[in-house]
Parts: sequence; C-alpha cells; structure tokens
Amino acid sequence: MKIESLASAAKAAATRLAAVASDKKNQILEAIAQSLQENEDAIVAANAADLSAAEADALAAPLLKRLKFDAGKLAGVVDGIRSLITLPDPVGETLTATELDNELKLYKVSCPIGVIGVIFESRPDALVQISTLCLKSGNAVLLKGGSEAANTNRILARVIAEASEAAGAPAGWLQLLETRAEVGEMLKLDDTIDLIVPRGSNAFVKYIMDNSNIAVLGHADGICHVYIDADADSDMAVRIAVDSKCQYVAVCNAAETLLVHEAVAQDVLPKLVSAMAESNVELIGCPATAAIIDVQEATEEDWKTEYLDYTLSVKVVPSLGNAIEHINTYGSGHTDVIVTANAESARTFMELVDSGNVFWNCSTRFSDGFRYGLGAEVGISTNKIHARGPVGLEGLIIYKWKMIGKGQTVAPYADGEKSFTHRQLDTTFDL
Amino acid sequence: MKIESLASAAKAAATRLAAVASDKKNQILEAIAQSLQENEDAIVAANAADLSAAEADALAAPLLKRLKFDAGKLAGVVDGIRSLITLPDPVGETLTATELDNELKLYKVSCPIGVIGVIFESRPDALVQISTLCLKSGNAVLLKGGSEAANTNRILARVIAEASEAAGAPAGWLQLLETRAEVGEMLKLDDTIDLIVPRGSNAFVKYIMDNSNIAVLGHADGICHVYIDADADSDMAVRIAVDSKCQYVAVCNAAETLLVHEAVAQDVLPKLVSAMAESNVELIGCPATAAIIDVQEATEEDWKTEYLDYTLSVKVVPSLGNAIEHINTYGSGHTDVIVTANAESARTFMELVDSGNVFWNCSTRFSDGFRYGLGAEVGISTNKIHARGPVGLEGLIIYKWKMIGKGQTVAPYADGEKSFTHRQLDTTFDL
Repeated sequence: MKIESLASAAKAAATRLAAVASDKKNQILEAIAQSLQENEDAIVAANAADLSAAEADALAAPLLKRLKFDAGKLAGVVDGIRSLITLPDPVGETLTATELDNELKLYKVSCPIGVIGVIFESRPDALVQISTLCLKSGNAVLLKGGSEAANTNRILARVIAEASEAAGAPAGWLQLLETRAEVGEMLKLDDTIDLIVPRGSNAFVKYIMDNSNIAVLGHADGICHVYIDADADSDMAVRIAVDSKCQYVAVCNAAETLLVHEAVAQDVLPKLVSAMAESNVELIGCPATAAIIDVQEATEEDWKTEYLDYTLSVKVVPSLGNAIEHINTYGSGHTDVIVTANAESARTFMELVDSGNVFWNCSTRFSDGFRYGLGAEVGISTNKIHARGPVGLEGLIIYKWKMIGKGQTVAPYADGEKSFTHRQLDTTFDL
Repeated sequence: MKIESLASAAKAAATRLAAVASDKKNQILEAIAQSLQENEDAIVAANAADLSAAEADALAAPLLKRLKFDAGKLAGVVDGIRSLITLPDPVGETLTATELDNELKLYKVSCPIGVIGVIFESRPDALVQISTLCLKSGNAVLLKGGSEAANTNRILARVIAEASEAAGAPAGWLQLLETRAEVGEMLKLDDTIDLIVPRGSNAFVKYIMDNSNIAVLGHADGICHVYIDADADSDMAVRIAVDSKCQYVAVCNAAETLLVHEAVAQDVLPKLVSAMAESNVELIGCPATAAIIDVQEATEEDWKTEYLDYTLSVKVVPSLGNAIEHINTYGSGHTDVIVTANAESARTFMELVDSGNVFWNCSTRFSDGFRYGLGAEVGISTNKIHARGPVGLEGLIIYKWKMIGKGQTVAPYADGEKSFTHRQLDTTFDL
C-alpha cells in the first residue's frame, strides 16, 4: 500500500507540475542547486558512511569509485543543473497547427509524460541528474538507486524535495524508493506510472519488461561495432578503434567488435595489434583474422558478447553489405561506426544499420547525452519507439492535441454539408 | 516456426524498405491503387463469400455493415491511397543538427520503426489503410484481421503484396497472419517485431500487454467527457453534447459522461433532456442531477463505463477543478471537451486534463486521423509515450542519430584538451 500512495502522490503532483511556468521551473532548479551546495558537508558525510560500509563489504574498486560523491562530484552536478536552466523548456511547444475549418483549429502541443519510475545503479550523481531532468520536463519521478548508496541517495532526495517544494514545486513530485520489494510493487502500478526507465544489464531490463505492463525505455546492452571499410585511412581507423575500445571499457558505448573489410585487412590488422597491445587489449578473431595476426579463435558467442573489458572481437568481412548484416544480426542497436573515405559507403551504412546511433569517421564513445549537447541524460535508449539513443529532456516529453472551436459538431462534416480545409498554420501563434 | 520465418522475412524487408526513396514509394502506392481497382470483381466476390458465411453465422447487423467491402468501399480506400501519396514522406527528415566541434556534426534524422504487428477488427478497409501507411512510412507489417473477413483480407493482402513487389517494394514487407495461434506466436517475437498495434477492447489490449514484451501502441477504451462550464452558452453546450454522444455511438470518440457545472445545471439539464430524448438516449445521473431531471441513479461503475450505446451518465460538479479531477480519475485519456466562453477556464482545462485530445467548444467526435488531416490512421493511442491520439504516418516514425567526423576520438575531450561547441545548425543541410 505504501508504494501505491507514494505513486498516487506523485501522480497528483505531476498534474500540477505540468502547468508550472518555465521561469518558475528554472527558479526551482536554482533553489535546488543552492541547497545542494549549502548541504555539502552533510551530503559528503552521508556518502562517507556509504563508502565505509561498501569498503567493509569489500566492494570492487570501480564500484567504489562510482559510489564516491565528494565536493568535486557535487560541484559537477550543480554545474549540470545550472546548464539545464539555460536549456529551452521542452513543454508547451506548439509542434503543428492546422486549420480544420473556419474557426476550428487543431494544435499539437508538447507536454510532460506524467510519472516516471527510474531504477538506476550506484552512482549518486544519477539521482540529481535524473530528478532535475524530470523537473525541467514537468514530470514527477519515483527513484530507486543502488542500495550501496542508500545514505547518499536519502539526503540528496531530501535536499532536492525540500528545496524544490519550498521554491514552489508541487509536493510529492519526487519520491525515493529504498527497497527491491518496492520496485516489485512499482512495476504493478500501470494506472499511475507512465514510463519505467531501468538502467542496468540486459538481463535486468528484460526482467523489468517481463514483470510490468508499464512502458519501458530500455537502457540495456551496448554491443557496438567499428567497421573499417575498404576505403578507410588505416591510421584514422586504428585511432578510432583504439578510442572506441579503450577510452573507457566498462561503459555501454565502448566498442566490442571490429569489422574489417578484406581488402584492407592485411594492412590494418598488424597496425591494430601494436596499437591495442599498448592498452593490453586481448584480441579474439575469426579464421580470416587469425590467418593475418595472432588471435584467439572467436566463437559464435563472441559476436553477441558485451565484454565491458579489455577484449575485442575481430572479423574480416568481404563487403560493406556483409558488415551491415553482421551489425544488424549481432548488434544491440546502440552505436555503430564506419571508417571510410567513401561518402556513398558511409551513407549506405548510416541508412541501413538499424541502430540508434550511426557514426562516420568518429569514435563510438561520442554516443552520450552530454557530448550530444542534451545536458544530462536519463539513459541511452536501445528501444525503437518514443526515444532513441541518449535521452535528455526531449525523451521525457509527449504531446497532446488541443482543438479550439466555436461550437462545431461532426454531423455536418459526416453528412457532406461541410468539408475540412486542413490548412497548415504558423506554429508561433499563441494559444 | 512458420510465424518466425514470416517475421524474419519482414525484418529483412524492413531494412531495405527504410532506404527506398520517396518517389519510389509513391510509385509503389500508385501501383497498389491501380491493382486494387483492376481486381475489383475478385475482391467484391471474396467479400461476398465472407458476408454469406457471416449471415449464416447470424453475425449482428452492425458487424455485417463493417464487414461489407463493396465497390464504394474499394473506391474509398483507393482515394485514401491517392491522398497518402500527396502527403510528405516522414522518413529522412533532419530534425536537429548540431556542431559538436570543428568538423564533427550530429544529425537527428527520422527513420521507420521497423516491423509493426497490427491486429485489427473486422473492417477490411483497415487492412488497406494500415498497410499503405506502413509502406509510406517505410515499415514492414504483419497483419491479423478479423476471421469473419478471412477471404477479403487474403485477396487484399495478396493484391497489395504482388502489386507493390512488382513495383519495386522489397519482397516480404507485408505478411498476413490468419489464425489466433499465429498472434500468440507473434507476441513472443520481441527480437524481430518492434511495435504491436492492437485495435480492440480494453481487455484485448491488456491481454496483449500481459503476453508480450514488445512495445504496444494501445488503442483501447474511450471514456470521453463533455464538461459544460459555468460560463457555457447552453445551446452550444447541448448541441456539442448531442453530437458527441449520438453522432455515432459505437465508436471510441463518442462521449460517455457529461459533467455540468452546478451554476448552470438548472438551465442546461432540462434542455439536455429534450435534446437527448430525440435520439432516445437513456440518461443516468448523480443525486444532484436527479434533483433537477428525471434520471436513473448512477453508480460508481457508471463513471468507468464505455457504454458504446445510447446511454449517457451525467454528473453535476461544483467547480472546474472538480471536473478536471473527475476526468483524470475516471477518464481513459482519450478525448475530453470543455464548453465555455471563459478563455482562462478553457486554457486551464486543456492544460490540466491529462488526455491525448483536449477540446474547447467542439465535439469529441472530431478526434480522428482523417478529420485531423493525418490521412488514414493506424489507431488512436491512449498511450503516453511515442504517439498520442490519432496515429498516422508520424506515429510510425522514430529517429536515429547520425554523426559525421574526420577521425575524432573522445580522449582529448575527456582529458579537457578539447571542448564541445554545441552550436545548433540549419536542419536544411543535406547529409
């Protein structure tokens, strides 16, 4: 019952938050930024408690690093809020305007989705980024973070809720869930919650989809590819491959498979070996690769694996079409790159590869909400509906159709007495 | 296994269909229109077989009417295809363009969703409308129509598939399913099918959601409201209420509940009684309504009921806020109307009512893809993500992010050596 009432409170708040003016939302965001700074000592102390508990539990070093939320991290999220304030309000934009007939006008106007449930990993920065993105886009939010960060999340959520409500946000717009059982309860509330954003492994996202009727904005596997075309500059290709694989291996937009056109394999692969050796990347390859360089033999499973580690599978392909087919078969629809000097091949690749992010001559690692200029992101969607790739403010927006008449009824149109004009109008008209 | 291979064929076709040029798609649509006309006799004969089987099964008269597909209906869908040809291609539109840094540009470009599964009711017109909307938007489609229309659907699907493929559409883009068991199989194919559009009752849509991980574009209940405000012109209010309720009672955009502000109830309700009596509408009301006019007493259940019949529930409310709350509590997020001369009240209503379609001073019955000028529609979405209200071409579109560089890597940006410009560019630039 408890989660049900938290969610109902969030729904009631969402209705009012949808109508809060842009200036007011920006004032609320500024109040949150200031309050986070004022509470720096208490936040860092709460995080220290989480960190020592995590150390006592022998949490792995990379996870400890993600969990840490010090003055520097706090300054970073405060900067993020200030840049969010500068972004245009995505709510209330007239997307289309149509005259249906004399004095009968139809407007498609952007509006918030409503109540969003986000389940995120150990990084407490995510709590601040997600909640402020939701606020700016007019959505109420239920948040469940990693249990290792319980103390940090609790104080961050309290500071944000209190500061925002004191500045005029509707009470209850942000709710913190603290247990796994509460997540289970949340998944059943399809009358109250409009969208679930699960951040985590593919298995976790699948679990959420299997256990809820609520729409899911999937943030799952990243099996990203770099394809080195016959017309690639081999130095550029190796540079992009190294950055895509090694710049940060534990993230979803790191490359897992390298595809090399057979025409350049003899030239590229030896260069790749020495470049990858510098970062101690283990290479796994198809028989054609093994005929050129010394690699472990790849199995079918390798093409489907997100290593998230210093491991790269390599395949020699006979054609561009074959590379595209490999990616559409084994990829996860996340981010895929072609390296080529041939514009026609690049266009074909970007047209036919069915992924949210398709790049020409740059690293897979650019696939990120901040780098895209979206401000923060709630996640990177590998869905094919609603929002795709890095999801910032716009991914949290839907629209409603507003129609304004003077008493018109459908009967005369159905009877053929009147007919529609369907004239497109200027969308800058103020409703 | 059979459905799996049909769906795989559709997926392979979808990849190629995504890259078919606008002119070519319009030529294919014209070829479909011509072939449907050329096959008129065979189509009408197949429909006659369905009709006599349905009569033998004593199908209800309204269903027989929907099942009928004669020369007039055929001319109607052919006209629909010709107007679809005139609509702009929704694929390949550059939605945003951003310079991330010198010679590193990011484009958000519209593209088809991929493979769409549509389960529709007995009207064979729907098969033509849905499949041609999918073709124009570059999507492959799996179609399952009502079993009463099996012969008509089979010939329509065959004519459309053959004519389109002869004109250059990739083979397999349209697949017809014929049994309920095949629908069950289809719901499991979340690797191949990107979106399910179930048209039917709320219970049916819920069933689909419960039994599939595939995203569902819900076309479910329409519990639509007309709210007569304190500042309404009573004649206009009654006229809109009558059209909303009676113009076609068996459809999702017909009104089911009338809310009347207490300040005008004494004036409006007696006028409503005489107007509704002309159409033999049964009125069911709250105690405050019953104190003014002679009605059956409403139960809690009435506010949640989609009558789809000559029945209207009536409630007197003390305020605009109360009307909004009633709609957000009992409505289905479909279409809701305010009748008022007060612009401020109308704006508040359209802002706070959380429905896909919110109207001021016109009938709920305008909520329709054709009337909106979208061409045909695949359905009316009561979802709050991806597409809302009548779903035409745009609802079948998503986007991908295309980035074009000159070999850029992320490392120098992560190290602080370089920084992003994030300059918005003109979207008319040709990729």
